[in-house]
Amino acid sequence: MEEQKKRTEIARLGQFGLIDRLTSGFEPRNASTLSGVGDDAAVVVPGEGEAVLCTTDSFYEGVDFDLTYFPLRHLGYKVVTAAVSDLLAMNALPSQLTVSLGVSSKLSVEALQELYEGIRVACEEHRIDLVGGDTRSSMTGLVLALTALGLAQKERIVRRSGAQQHDLICLTGNLGAAFMGLQLLEREKRVLADVEHPEPQFEGYEYLLEKYLKPRPRTDVVEALREEKIVPTAMIDLSDGLASDLMQICKSSDCGARIYLDRVPIARQTSALAEEMHLDPVVAALHGGEDYELLFTVPLSMQEEIMRLGLVDVIGHITPASTGCYLVTPDGQEIKLKAQGFQQTN
Amino acid sequence: MEEQKKRTEIARLGQFGLIDRLTSGFEPRNASTLSGVGDDAAVVVPGEGEAVLCTTDSFYEGVDFDLTYFPLRHLGYKVVTAAVSDLLAMNALPSQLTVSLGVSSKLSVEALQELYEGIRVACEEHRIDLVGGDTRSSMTGLVLALTALGLAQKERIVRRSGAQQHDLICLTGNLGAAFMGLQLLEREKRVLADVEHPEPQFEGYEYLLEKYLKPRPRTDVVEALREEKIVPTAMIDLSDGLASDLMQICKSSDCGARIYLDRVPIARQTSALAEEMHLDPVVAALHGGEDYELLFTVPLSMQEEIMRLGLVDVIGHITPASTGCYLVTPDGQEIKLKAQGFQQTN
Repeated sequence: MEEQKKRTEIARLGQFGLIDRLTSGFEPRNASTLSGVGDDAAVVVPGEGEAVLCTTDSFYEGVDFDLTYFPLRHLGYKVVTAAVSDLLAMNALPSQLTVSLGVSSKLSVEALQELYEGIRVACEEHRIDLVGGDTRSSMTGLVLALTALGLAQKERIVRRSGAQQHDLICLTGNLGAAFMGLQLLEREKRVLADVEHPEPQFEGYEYLLEKYLKPRPRTDVVEALREEKIVPTAMIDLSDGLASDLMQICKSSDCGARIYLDRVPIARQTSALAEEMHLDPVVAALHGGEDYELLFTVPLSMQEEIMRLGLVDVIGHITPASTGCYLVTPDGQEIKLKAQGFQQTN
Repeated sequence: MEEQKKRTEIARLGQFGLIDRLTSGFEPRNASTLSGVGDDAAVVVPGEGEAVLCTTDSFYEGVDFDLTYFPLRHLGYKVVTAAVSDLLAMNALPSQLTVSLGVSSKLSVEALQELYEGIRVACEEHRIDLVGGDTRSSMTGLVLALTALGLAQKERIVRRSGAQQHDLICLTGNLGAAFMGLQLLEREKRVLADVEHPEPQFEGYEYLLEKYLKPRPRTDVVEALREEKIVPTAMIDLSDGLASDLMQICKSSDCGARIYLDRVPIARQTSALAEEMHLDPVVAALHGGEDYELLFTVPLSMQEEIMRLGLVDVIGHITPASTGCYLVTPDGQEIKLKAQGFQQTN
């Protein structure tokens, strides 16, 4: 029984009318936001000793997301997560956001309002002000270009390049769930491609869908680090998979790493679906990507403080550059990490 | 005689390799740039009393530009102009830039290097640091999403909303040239559509092509205002055409305006081509758009200082909101301004 939904064509509102409609209800609340939507540029005034951090991310329909199973509301939430996750990875808190849309006439005004509802929820949850953006026609699918601004005290900014020998490698959350969520959605799409009233089977795997469709940015972790006065030596967010992202830290910091397979957290649903689909959950964890968890290093001396946070697992430690980057299995085998795929060395 | 050009496929370099290749040779030079390319986010530290301004712009092949006649090097330059023009319109000087690309396999690495060469020239001329960006595959044409950051002393920031009654309306450069340049390119494209060795006729109209293909941002005007300690009461950059952009100022400032037709500067080539193509040069000037000149207001008392700049024409003045926005012809007729098209009132 399908609901008859109202459909307003974008052309009816025009470019300015559409932007007004989409951004209504977004009121700037951060002290650093001097001007928001409605002028040529947004104005941001950082506090005493603070730097402004800036990152951009683009998302293309058919490349980065599939609208046949991606609810627009979740998509709005997820792109905010992906954008601000890069700021969190520098130990900064997000404060402002701009959203540029390329839209085809395929989408109605109501559909775009759904998208913006997801953006609004993410902004509210993480105290981010929407300060600008525009819409243009796209000849094909939906394109989103987000710019996120964040603030941090200069001396608290964390780069990828600061990891030191013996540092502990810390990880928030668990890995591979988003990747398995995507596998599940793709499987149901294939299976139900020719079915008239498709009823996809997601029971028991709700957590995986949530991790793929609506991942949360780890603002809580950066806030906790700030509260406990802990400054990591290096940090990155997990967008390309643990192996690839850890290797980025090692490359920037000119060091090696050992991570221990039995310390890498994998959720029960991730393992269960991997088994059902005859996939290796470790591959999902190492190379899945889109986890948006944080991977960071701290000096060995901070082990106790870090464990007290209750938010991270210590999964390994930093070694000299000459020793390379390896995953150590419970029986002591060392598997060389690769950015894509991995291979055994002995 | 066509030169055989080298063609490297994007797939051969991969995403990281491509970004490294494109951004090599961009070295940050501004004191406010604490980190540039190569980490999760760029870090900007404004000077004492300065705010950070941020604006984003997207450009879609087939909507915003046509690669059949738009040289990639000029396109690179032009998108930087369009992006930073919004910062200049707030009386800020551009300082940092990020560029996100959506690219189809149609373009080679060498073609993208041409694009970046144009971006590099614009950045060098206007002292802008490239601090980030990414590339993704686009299912269709080329997509560019730019974010520009700029700096200004808080008390020197100019909004659209500050115009006061009796203020002078000032304009840099001349209008309609970019629009006529586009008409010329479109005409030659139509005429030569089926010709095997097309030789487009641009003689005598080189200025119009330059204004459309490689418009320069008016950094010089903002610098001159700073030097002369002049702070406009309102400002906007001319991207949608004089009529539409002036009406944006009037709407934000709750005022009316009178501009005088014989004061609106139109270049000789603009009039000549308009005559040749049976178009009205005034329509091109009022509604052409993409001029990237600056339109601003100053108190009547500053007339002498403003004229001393040697960079602007005074084309009219601000009136009460109730009197509306009109163009006054030499014989005293008043023509009501409209965002699109215009009509006579008496």
